[in-house]
Amino acid sequence: MPLIAVNFKAYPESMGDSGLHLARLCESVGEERGLSFIVCPQQPDLRFIAENVRIPVFAQHVDAYEPGSRTGHVVPEAVKASGARGTLINHSEHRVQIFGIDWLVEKCGSLNLDTIVCTNNISVSKACAALNPTYVAVEPPELIGGDISVTTANPEIVSGTVEAIKRIAPQVKVLCGAGVKTGEDVRVAIELGTEGVLLASGVVKAKDPKKALYELVKEV
Amino acid sequence: MPLIAVNFKAYPESMGDSGLHLARLCESVGEERGLSFIVCPQQPDLRFIAENVRIPVFAQHVDAYEPGSRTGHVVPEAVKASGARGTLINHSEHRVQIFGIDWLVEKCGSLNLDTIVCTNNISVSKACAALNPTYVAVEPPELIGGDISVTTANPEIVSGTVEAIKRIAPQVKVLCGAGVKTGEDVRVAIELGTEGVLLASGVVKAKDPKKALYELVKEV
Amino acid sequence: MPLIAVNFKAYPESMGDSGLHLARLCESVGEERGLSFIVCPQQPDLRFIAENVRIPVFAQHVDAYEPGSRTGHVVPEAVKASGARGTLINHSEHRVQIFGIDWLVEKCGSLNLDTIVCTNNISVSKACAALNPTYVAVEPPELIGGDISVTTANPEIVSGTVEAIKRIAPQVKVLCGAGVKTGEDVRVAIELGTEGVLLASGVVKAKDPKKALYELVKEV
Amino acid sequence: MPLIAVNFKAYPESMGDSGLHLARLCESVGEERGLSFIVCPQQPDLRFIAENVRIPVFAQHVDAYEPGSRTGHVVPEAVKASGARGTLINHSEHRVQIFGIDWLVEKCGSLNLDTIVCTNNISVSKACAALNPTYVAVEPPELIGGDISVTTANPEIVSGTVEAIKRIAPQVKVLCGAGVKTGEDVRVAIELGTEGVLLASGVVKAKDPKKALYELVKEV
Repeated sequence: MPLIAVNFKAYPESMGDSGLHLARLCESVGEERGLSFIVCPQQPDLRFIAENVRIPVFAQHVDAYEPGSRTGHVVPEAVKASGARGTLINHSEHRVQIFGIDWLVEKCGSLNLDTIVCTNNISVSKACAALNPTYVAVEPPELIGGDISVTTANPEIVSGTVEAIKRIAPQVKVLCGAGVKTGEDVRVAIELGTEGVLLASGVVKAKDPKKALYELVKEV
Repeated sequence: MPLIAVNFKAYPESMGDSGLHLARLCESVGEERGLSFIVCPQQPDLRFIAENVRIPVFAQHVDAYEPGSRTGHVVPEAVKASGARGTLINHSEHRVQIFGIDWLVEKCGSLNLDTIVCTNNISVSKACAALNPTYVAVEPPELIGGDISVTTANPEIVSGTVEAIKRIAPQVKVLCGAGVKTGEDVRVAIELGTEGVLLASGVVKAKDPKKALYELVKEV
Repeated sequence: MPLIAVNFKAYPESMGDSGLHLARLCESVGEERGLSFIVCPQQPDLRFIAENVRIPVFAQHVDAYEPGSRTGHVVPEAVKASGARGTLINHSEHRVQIFGIDWLVEKCGSLNLDTIVCTNNISVSKACAALNPTYVAVEPPELIGGDISVTTANPEIVSGTVEAIKRIAPQVKVLCGAGVKTGEDVRVAIELGTEGVLLASGVVKAKDPKKALYELVKEV
Repeated sequence: MPLIAVNFKAYPESMGDSGLHLARLCESVGEERGLSFIVCPQQPDLRFIAENVRIPVFAQHVDAYEPGSRTGHVVPEAVKASGARGTLINHSEHRVQIFGIDWLVEKCGSLNLDTIVCTNNISVSKACAALNPTYVAVEPPELIGGDISVTTANPEIVSGTVEAIKRIAPQVKVLCGAGVKTGEDVRVAIELGTEGVLLASGVVKAKDPKKALYELVKEV
């Protein structure tokens, strides 16, 4: 069963009540079609959305700090307390030092939070897999938010990541992202050996997100 | 009517349900004693707490970006959408570039969000007042989280800030913070010309936060 | 006597020997025409160029740290030891937290290093003037590296900065920059009340930097 | 022949002329004893010292940018132009995002600059080895600058790093550091499978750096 992780980013279309609406759409399409969805709301809505949907909610980012005097930072324990089940780490739009990725993967693991570490190419995917997160999500930054899916523009980066990670840390699951929009993109992602996709604008910025979601899952 | 702003920081004692409990304590003590409280929850709880209390909720931090492809960042519009009424900016534990403070003060103003810009001394207070936020909160970093209040250890920094800001931007209100714990600290803060205090550990880390809140307001 | 500060940035045309050549050109044009030049070489060349020219050399950036265990950071004392006479601070391409600008202005002052704090608009210029640097250099970021000078595209930002700073901290001198290339740009900058200009690509990226320098000083 | 890399950090004892003096001491001890020394001067002294010693000079840090409008940043090409032969990357005191480490390792390789990527534990060492730098230097941050060498306090981290890297990227050489001061520390580092050590305060902050250098090399 492929996984579809929807990153809400900081789009106006996914703030507050609109974010909850979008999360519920993902939930209902997933339940109807027997697919696994994860939603990644904006930080201020994390608890609010986690309380109101049954599908797993992930944070978009978490800071590599222990709880304490860390004004404005979001620590793993706070993600956990919000009811979220995991977090993105090192998204191309919020990059993290390697010491921090390592620390976060271990800390989140100890809190039973899943981790999706984002990478930009095969060598960084290999490096991050060595840190043993739940998922590595490979996304070429130049394709993020664009009209051509990574599965079309650069399938080699996806299959190369799958292969490299299989050798170095076979327990780490692979997602791919960047430009993913259609059912074919998702199908090809699976054929290339991934567990699913990470996407954002393709759903969140769609004129009709519900239609976009159905389009996305139609071939799986 | 003095203002008491309680920064929840990233303490375990203020996460999730405990955060809501604390916010409600502030609300009830404020209503009972006729005092203005502001609470600054952890980011993941922002909407959750804003929905459940009547007192103003502020974010602890906000990022200087327009809404959009900004994974993991909290933009002013998202703070607004959460139901918050304002935000801290440039806390000593989450410092901001001056270009960002300027941009945020203006953007938040246009969204009708109040801004509390934190500063560490008189010259930075003057500089920040020139950017025209709603409040400047002066807090010597070396006293933050400590046992001696800024009003005892360094009253000159408080009165000096009040005076400097009066000359440069008299419409900007002044708070003070760092080590504030007792009713006397609050009373002296007011006598020194501020509108109130910004505090964190004195309440959040107190063995009995309710008692700590009553102690805090007993002289005003 | 107007001041012309040339920021070498990280251009290939200003690295190493080419940087020294450029610094010497500035020196000879300045001496020939009775003008004050400052050159801001790339960090690795700071001492090398400071040793080999008579005009003042400034760092492009300095980190807000005391000397010590700060691998890879450039502290004010190291700028001083290199023979430089000052430093840029908070360039739009290397922004600094306001606590750091304040700390650096004071520390550099105590080391007898001049400071040029870069700003992006009138309100940030006012804020930075409150910190009492030697110079404020106002540069609208959207014009930096472009073909139209700030003196043509936005003379109000220059005169507005001069005026605002005169009220708040009259001892602080004003420079302007962004798109400055011609003798007329420099002349107008002076007429608008500045002490001179800060520029980069107009000289460093010029096909013939010597010609560009003569062009720049022809009206003063 | 073991390698001894001396990181000058931002110590007062290694600025400017003192830095050159120290570099020359390393050079003469190395030549006398047939040992390989690398010195890592402060950025402003890079070209100045590279010109005046025969041993390899490395930068302490380099920024992950192409040459261009990058005021105050040190790009790999500028390190190369200064005469340096390599650079530290990701020192615990100047941490780098993993995308940046990957980019720098490749870019420096293409410029024929050696790279020493610093790490804090075995898993990060493995991750960084996957990026294929010239060296990985493992240094537990809590021992840096202290009195007990990593080779005494935590030899397992050294041998574990050597072993893990041998499996994943056998061409990558290993250094170790933190608290290294004596000849025995260096000898044990070699016995644990490294090519040598990375150290700083043990030499730079020594009362008598010359004596400290002789002490360091006496068992090899």
